[in-house]
Amino acid sequence: MNNFIFENGTKVIFGKGCVKEYLSCFLKHYGNNVMLAYGGGSIKKNGIYDEIMGVLEKDGKTIVEFNGIMANPTYAKVTEGAKLARENQVDVILAVGGGSVMDCSKAISMAAKYDGDLWSDYWAKPGIIDFEPVPLCVIVTVSGTGSEMNGGAVITNEELKVKTGRDYPKCNPKLALLDPTYTFSVPVKQMVSGGFDSLSHIMEIYFSAPDEPNVSDDIAEALMRGVIRDLRAAIKNPKDYTARSNLMWEAVMAENRIIKLGKKTDFECHMMEHQLGAFTDCNHGAGLAVLHPVYYRHIYKEGIAKFKRFAMEVWGISGNGRADEEIALAGIDALEKFISEIGLPNKLRDLGVDEKTDLKAVADSCTCVQGAYKAMTHEEIHEIFKECY
Amino acid sequence: MNNFIFENGTKVIFGKGCVKEYLSCFLKHYGNNVMLAYGGGSIKKNGIYDEIMGVLEKDGKTIVEFNGIMANPTYAKVTEGAKLARENQVDVILAVGGGSVMDCSKAISMAAKYDGDLWSDYWAKPGIIDFEPVPLCVIVTVSGTGSEMNGGAVITNEELKVKTGRDYPKCNPKLALLDPTYTFSVPVKQMVSGGFDSLSHIMEIYFSAPDEPNVSDDIAEALMRGVIRDLRAAIKNPKDYTARSNLMWEAVMAENRIIKLGKKTDFECHMMEHQLGAFTDCNHGAGLAVLHPVYYRHIYKEGIAKFKRFAMEVWGISGNGRADEEIALAGIDALEKFISEIGLPNKLRDLGVDEKTDLKAVADSCTCVQGAYKAMTHEEIHEIFKECY
Repeated sequence: MNNFIFENGTKVIFGKGCVKEYLSCFLKHYGNNVMLAYGGGSIKKNGIYDEIMGVLEKDGKTIVEFNGIMANPTYAKVTEGAKLARENQVDVILAVGGGSVMDCSKAISMAAKYDGDLWSDYWAKPGIIDFEPVPLCVIVTVSGTGSEMNGGAVITNEELKVKTGRDYPKCNPKLALLDPTYTFSVPVKQMVSGGFDSLSHIMEIYFSAPDEPNVSDDIAEALMRGVIRDLRAAIKNPKDYTARSNLMWEAVMAENRIIKLGKKTDFECHMMEHQLGAFTDCNHGAGLAVLHPVYYRHIYKEGIAKFKRFAMEVWGISGNGRADEEIALAGIDALEKFISEIGLPNKLRDLGVDEKTDLKAVADSCTCVQGAYKAMTHEEIHEIFKECY
Repeated sequence: MNNFIFENGTKVIFGKGCVKEYLSCFLKHYGNNVMLAYGGGSIKKNGIYDEIMGVLEKDGKTIVEFNGIMANPTYAKVTEGAKLARENQVDVILAVGGGSVMDCSKAISMAAKYDGDLWSDYWAKPGIIDFEPVPLCVIVTVSGTGSEMNGGAVITNEELKVKTGRDYPKCNPKLALLDPTYTFSVPVKQMVSGGFDSLSHIMEIYFSAPDEPNVSDDIAEALMRGVIRDLRAAIKNPKDYTARSNLMWEAVMAENRIIKLGKKTDFECHMMEHQLGAFTDCNHGAGLAVLHPVYYRHIYKEGIAKFKRFAMEVWGISGNGRADEEIALAGIDALEKFISEIGLPNKLRDLGVDEKTDLKAVADSCTCVQGAYKAMTHEEIHEIFKECY
């Protein structure tokens, strides 16, 4: 294990009925003004809104609603929420939704307590900041990003066409309430997209230094096998509580810092997809599905041993005396086949990226990192985008 | 995943040199009076004591030393430490050692802040207690119990001949400093015993309900394979940093509550060993090594599917068209063979349990729990002890 520092201040309550049982008790620790943040209103259709409002009203809370949080939440929306939170002297934010709602709410929890311009001082030019955000409780209704147990908030600056995130430990939710049945009304397509986002997080971490035996990689493999098994089961039967609850916890385990310990975790593929999202507003999980196999075929030669291990340990591909390269490629093929099997696209054109999109401009906007096994150039990222189109 | 609540307040700093780099910074948050708790003095021989004292003296701390903490720490020792902590108005406890020192220090951190008799109010008759113990920082020098990232303290009441533990979240160390090189001077025998203790923790959790696919079991299997791989490597070369650092983190991951989530975790074999320890003061890891295979042969029939999975996933045993029972038994055989391979005993007589020990009395002192797959009786525990002798 390489050196690391770990802490995670989020308390997680997991299971059917947890919101009704624990929300009121948690809110007693904070003041009366609650901001209820959510997205496009699906929670009003599936009864979750009513259940939560029931708890808040019974406790006599003053409720400030902040809705309309979009996929790929914008910095403009963060600023709007922060203003509302300040004006209403909000004591605690209750975020109800998936990754977009949680990330936007985390950003609001910081911006509401910060006097300067948080974009330039935090997302754009990461320096040291040290202050307590507004306390946050999240209630997860769409699983995938794993945002519920870290301090990360991925925000899109529309003006600058930049989508980026940071993980600030003090921004961890104080409480995460995870009721797997809350995700049952999520359409299968979106469930699959979220599940693939989790798988992608694990792969991004796994394919990075160090590659010598280490606990984080061991756990990552277990989680990848689990996500694959549980996605298959959940597609077969979306009401399969075992599969859905496993997917919900796998999403968290992928992003609660445990499997990142001692790992380099460059998240290069995510970074490329984020810029695609900033330019085209495409679906995050689907964008990752298109990019991953193509990206991996660009880098596997520099990390053959790890791609071979991935093929054998995650996809159960046997060596059978074949050359390492052949086994490594068979693993990437298996990943691609799985992406088709679960109904995700293989081409950017299939997920609504307009053919007029200036892919070179998108590529040039990416930060070139010394990725997993190979330093990426803007030219190679552009090549990848073109192959993906 | 079954329902669960998770929180873990311990901050972990892991890696070579972490004590020198971070201890002073941590202690700034607390008052000047530091209790330095340790065991028989091995830290004075390997230089760890001097390194820590160097930091404390440079910071002008008032140091209260409390040493001589024994394996299987006694409640009498806890009372002695608590008295010392109170008399010296200790602000923070610094525990330097393995599981015994950490557990005794956790117990002291509670007893020093509790007016009643903590044995009868806490260990003997678990009820609700709610108070803040003295803040605790642990510096691990022997790896295995995983006590460094939970609130558990296993204490032996010599008068009553009871060894028992509880996990109290507020008793989690505030900080755990884990420098793998601090474990390099631990004799191989003790390192192996600690490694087996970790493996045992994972097995105890794994072999409990539920057995349907769940994330905790997936991670448990990854950790078991890791401990086996890393113990083999560390025996071959005790200075193998990769192996020793993996073992150190695997020990923590086995006991930081992550793989217990949604699991029943009865710890039946530990409970039997604890009573053996209370009566004979035998080595904990070695006692577990003797008990596990015999105990598992008593219960596997009621949990054949899980024992088969254990054989195939952890020990790489292939089915080859054999009956489930045969595969299940092959897994227990593999475990027993591994115990011999790493030099741990297969019989109680080999670990110094006197033949005059009243094994029936030890068995009768065990709490009969509805264990993993079968309800144990005092008679069957006595049978197991006799077979183990």
